[in-house]
Amino acid sequence: MALSQLTISNRGREVQGSPIRKLAAIAEKRKREGIRVYHLNIGQPDLPSPEVVQQFFKTFSRRTIEYAPSNGLPETISAWRKYFENYDIYFDDEEIIVTTGGSEAIAFAISAICDPGDEVIVFEPFYTNYNGFASLAGVKLVPVELNISNSFSLPPKEVIEKYITIRTKAILFCDPSNPTGRIFTEDEIRNITDIARTYNLFLIADEVYREFAYDRKPISIARIPELSDRVIIVDSCSKRFNMCGARIGALASKNKDIIDAVLKFSMARLSVATIDQLSVIPLLENSALYTQPIVEEFHKRRDIVYEALSTIPEITYYKPEGAFYIIIGLPVKDSEHFAKWLIEEFHENKETVLLAPAQGFYATPGKGINEVRLAFMLNVVDLKRSIELIGRAIQQYKTLFAE
Amino acid sequence: MALSQLTISNRGREVQGSPIRKLAAIAEKRKREGIRVYHLNIGQPDLPSPEVVQQFFKTFSRRTIEYAPSNGLPETISAWRKYFENYDIYFDDEEIIVTTGGSEAIAFAISAICDPGDEVIVFEPFYTNYNGFASLAGVKLVPVELNISNSFSLPPKEVIEKYITIRTKAILFCDPSNPTGRIFTEDEIRNITDIARTYNLFLIADEVYREFAYDRKPISIARIPELSDRVIIVDSCSKRFNMCGARIGALASKNKDIIDAVLKFSMARLSVATIDQLSVIPLLENSALYTQPIVEEFHKRRDIVYEALSTIPEITYYKPEGAFYIIIGLPVKDSEHFAKWLIEEFHENKETVLLAPAQGFYATPGKGINEVRLAFMLNVVDLKRSIELIGRAIQQYKTLFAE
Repeated sequence: MALSQLTISNRGREVQGSPIRKLAAIAEKRKREGIRVYHLNIGQPDLPSPEVVQQFFKTFSRRTIEYAPSNGLPETISAWRKYFENYDIYFDDEEIIVTTGGSEAIAFAISAICDPGDEVIVFEPFYTNYNGFASLAGVKLVPVELNISNSFSLPPKEVIEKYITIRTKAILFCDPSNPTGRIFTEDEIRNITDIARTYNLFLIADEVYREFAYDRKPISIARIPELSDRVIIVDSCSKRFNMCGARIGALASKNKDIIDAVLKFSMARLSVATIDQLSVIPLLENSALYTQPIVEEFHKRRDIVYEALSTIPEITYYKPEGAFYIIIGLPVKDSEHFAKWLIEEFHENKETVLLAPAQGFYATPGKGINEVRLAFMLNVVDLKRSIELIGRAIQQYKTLFAE
Repeated sequence: MALSQLTISNRGREVQGSPIRKLAAIAEKRKREGIRVYHLNIGQPDLPSPEVVQQFFKTFSRRTIEYAPSNGLPETISAWRKYFENYDIYFDDEEIIVTTGGSEAIAFAISAICDPGDEVIVFEPFYTNYNGFASLAGVKLVPVELNISNSFSLPPKEVIEKYITIRTKAILFCDPSNPTGRIFTEDEIRNITDIARTYNLFLIADEVYREFAYDRKPISIARIPELSDRVIIVDSCSKRFNMCGARIGALASKNKDIIDAVLKFSMARLSVATIDQLSVIPLLENSALYTQPIVEEFHKRRDIVYEALSTIPEITYYKPEGAFYIIIGLPVKDSEHFAKWLIEEFHENKETVLLAPAQGFYATPGKGINEVRLAFMLNVVDLKRSIELIGRAIQQYKTLFAE
């Protein structure tokens, strides 16, 4: 007899709120008070969506906005296939499932591999929302610690192996990485894939930042034939086309059991939004045309951020090779307190900055407590000014909250 | 050490494929062979989406298709609030979260209430996709059997109480019901809510067919103030506006813990498609204008289906009071075999029918094995012809597969 109190689930209580979004309400309040807020907290692209999308909507005409097939519209699936081919990644249409953003692809991948109580290895700091999907699925993320002081490079194989237990089912990684901007080297990829083969693990590769690679190209594990039964690729149109609001992603795998399971999960939620699936087809089919100018702009921004940070004393950071984030170690005790103070109280000439405290990107308690993640989501002038403001704020904060 | 075989998860293997969609591939093949297929298997509306939506897309112009806030665009949330008010259902904006279809709302509701291993009571036959969401969440659906012969009415309280265990967290029901078309009476709603209060259970009410009510109005449990801490309303624009492909739903609750949990789940998946959220605003704000003609048409169809079925001997069915489905008991042993034969081999004048075997709408093994679900998704003429074809097919099938 269920006579206990009316309480929500443990996962509902314990799931992590987004550290990226939780200071947003304060920022809105501050703006109403006349303060200009530079948003460096979120990967919300500021550049326009491609013109061809605007055109698409203008000419869109369908009598009924119907459900799409659960695996995706055939033409959207083919467009993903063609997109992948440009990167020498070969999937058949039957090996691709269109998802509601990369988010749903990650959630489906985790549930297809893991039952409640199973474990997935991640490299921390990692994309914070992996936590949410793991909580929802009842799966435990096991973080392998990387360090800013060591350029976020992977530890040797023997160290990673220590994290593997009887419940470990997969390694999940983002390359180029959100939030570190690190791109794994060939050796690092080899270590990961060797471990996967030795311990019979799946590999979930989140490659949504594929094109955002400034110093070296990332190595897609989808190109390694011997791994084909254990690789799941997670992808998204959001960042590379400035189409975050369309929520179109994909999951691809050559493992038929995985695709069968994901297809059944897809059937449960019926379909992905039809018009959004249609809107990205021209982008996927001519991807370089749209991604190149975007990536060039972010390359410029990466260089400027890196240079500007050198003027701030006592901070640590690693030059990101890809994506559009940087993790910065601050000379403060608690970056969440700093970020809250920064958005709530600080201003210089009525301007301030919104940052994402990095603790939410770690699973190990106490790790990242003095770090923030900064996203390059502003034009060059505003970026420079933002970093100037961060420098001033650190000085002032240290005076105010000196030990 | 994880040295076991590379195998997918149990939930990935065991999750039910959609019984509604699994014969679809055969139907496509048959069409290529020149056979006309009447689709009565799926709730894919055949009527046009409202003209105002077409206009919206034509005039849509936003520089960047950005992420929406995780709880929904403020204007879409307000539109849902206003929509509910028309039915004397009062939620504040903070009590509403926009979801990717009613599907995501159900998934979020289950996970906010239940941990893996917890139980939710459903009345079978029930919307088959509840199975998928429960599997994904590691939650057990406990079916209370209803019977076609008893008009799918609820059993007395004492019978329902027998299904409650220490793990029971909620009762989930769809009213008007997919797949039975039943609308609960005042007494039935009272029994459900009494049980919820006695045993401290949450109530998840899937009200996506609210307007599709021909003989009596459904009673929304959101209107019962004493229940406000235990009620979660699941809703969707899909059916009532012929906007299935937009994937815009909502979850609403006055329980702050539930909303907090669902908001955190929402943050993990970032947002619901922006343009689709915008497209439904005019529909929600003037809902009666758009739902009335649609509901009138389905009322007509319900009457015609009911009348036409009376010409087929040896079948059983219950006159649906709402929604747009009917469960039919057939004089065959295995309706899946029949439905497959019907779409794969049968035709009369090069015409045949696609039906959904009803077994997938039951969780009790063996239940519904001779039943099919029929959706009223065709115009009056085609509906009549479809039912004529079903009658002929039954005759022929019985001759072919006589014991």
